[in-house]
Amino acid sequence: MHLGRHISGQFNVELESIRTHVLTMGGLVEQQLSFAMQALHKDDADLARKVVRDDHKVNAMEVSIDEACTRIIAKRQPTAKDLRLIMAIIKTITDLERIGDVATKIAYVTIESPSPKESKFRVSLEPLCRQAIAMLHQVLDAFARMDLESAAEVYRLDDKLDAEYEAVIRQLMTYMMEDPKNIPHILQVMWSARAIERVGDRCQNICEYIIYFVKGKDVRHLGKQSIDDILK
Amino acid sequence: MHLGRHISGQFNVELESIRTHVLTMGGLVEQQLSFAMQALHKDDADLARKVVRDDHKVNAMEVSIDEACTRIIAKRQPTAKDLRLIMAIIKTITDLERIGDVATKIAYVTIESPSPKESKFRVSLEPLCRQAIAMLHQVLDAFARMDLESAAEVYRLDDKLDAEYEAVIRQLMTYMMEDPKNIPHILQVMWSARAIERVGDRCQNICEYIIYFVKGKDVRHLGKQSIDDILK
Repeated sequence: MHLGRHISGQFNVELESIRTHVLTMGGLVEQQLSFAMQALHKDDADLARKVVRDDHKVNAMEVSIDEACTRIIAKRQPTAKDLRLIMAIIKTITDLERIGDVATKIAYVTIESPSPKESKFRVSLEPLCRQAIAMLHQVLDAFARMDLESAAEVYRLDDKLDAEYEAVIRQLMTYMMEDPKNIPHILQVMWSARAIERVGDRCQNICEYIIYFVKGKDVRHLGKQSIDDILK
Repeated sequence: MHLGRHISGQFNVELESIRTHVLTMGGLVEQQLSFAMQALHKDDADLARKVVRDDHKVNAMEVSIDEACTRIIAKRQPTAKDLRLIMAIIKTITDLERIGDVATKIAYVTIESPSPKESKFRVSLEPLCRQAIAMLHQVLDAFARMDLESAAEVYRLDDKLDAEYEAVIRQLMTYMMEDPKNIPHILQVMWSARAIERVGDRCQNICEYIIYFVKGKDVRHLGKQSIDDILK
């Protein structure tokens, strides 16, 4: 893919290598979320423990990509679009790392589950988690191609995730009221639902970085309407 | 304060100006948190609405400092310690902006409070919020002086905040079980407690950036023991 010409071919190679690492990190995070959801679905504590164990890999990737970005700035003194790409990457990996933390959080719901009969409380997390994974998948795809239109689509998906989240919370509140002794466990499920809903926000952040890279405009905090206007 | 020598005096001036802006942003965020807590304490919906209204100022500062950092990288091609300072700033302002969002969240608890008699549920937020503000204040001070020891102290304070948070959650759970019809409102208070607890984590992040700047070592994800070892 063409991302601008460089005097130095080596620079290009280095930039591409960082981009590839970001996508690898994104793939790993997506897998972590997906395993966490499977573990929840099958009440598979072993798989959940694997997710917790593997979180350090996501963390290590964040640190090493950050290092690579700092090194390339110091060595290559990028400007304009190259610099925007590096800035977008530095911010993207922070969000990816936090999404990795969400996978761990969901994994703990399975690990600490009191007994199979409480599993009905967490059934509702599945469609929510599935939607979040789909958003993440699509935003990584948009990032790989630096595709504005696809980014804008993901951005809009967050409303659906929010609506699903509200429904899950209402449902869980009903369970709480029906049987207050389950409140502690249901609360843990609620924290996870909340964390999954935040995955959507983080995907939106990544969309904003894509827009920043392509359009050179920082659209954070501008709201949906302004973003739609910019993408027109 | 001495932060390294530069060939260009102008560069120094620009760097200092960015640092000053970060501290101004930090001061504003601290004020927002503090107003949000006062509003909660006095049931002052007007003050709470002011907090919500002023959040855009925090957001605007994040965007403008980020721009200044990108500009200085492109124009001055910093390396070594100067570049680390800029990287530390870019990450710090993300955390500051999110702490600003927490203030807004707490403000909404006051604004949407169903009736004064429910205020007992949110009394427990005050000591938690006070501790978080103290942590933020101290970490900003450490940032201003790039003081490792002070940063390490703030880092350790988070355990106290976590313990206070656990106590608040247990208390709120008891309220829920006693009177399930209050669950929706208590949940909102719980979300806020959670958000305040996260302020501590974000202050810890800023400590890590201070260590990164001073020591040139990325200590994220290393855990408390390793950080203690580095600071020895």
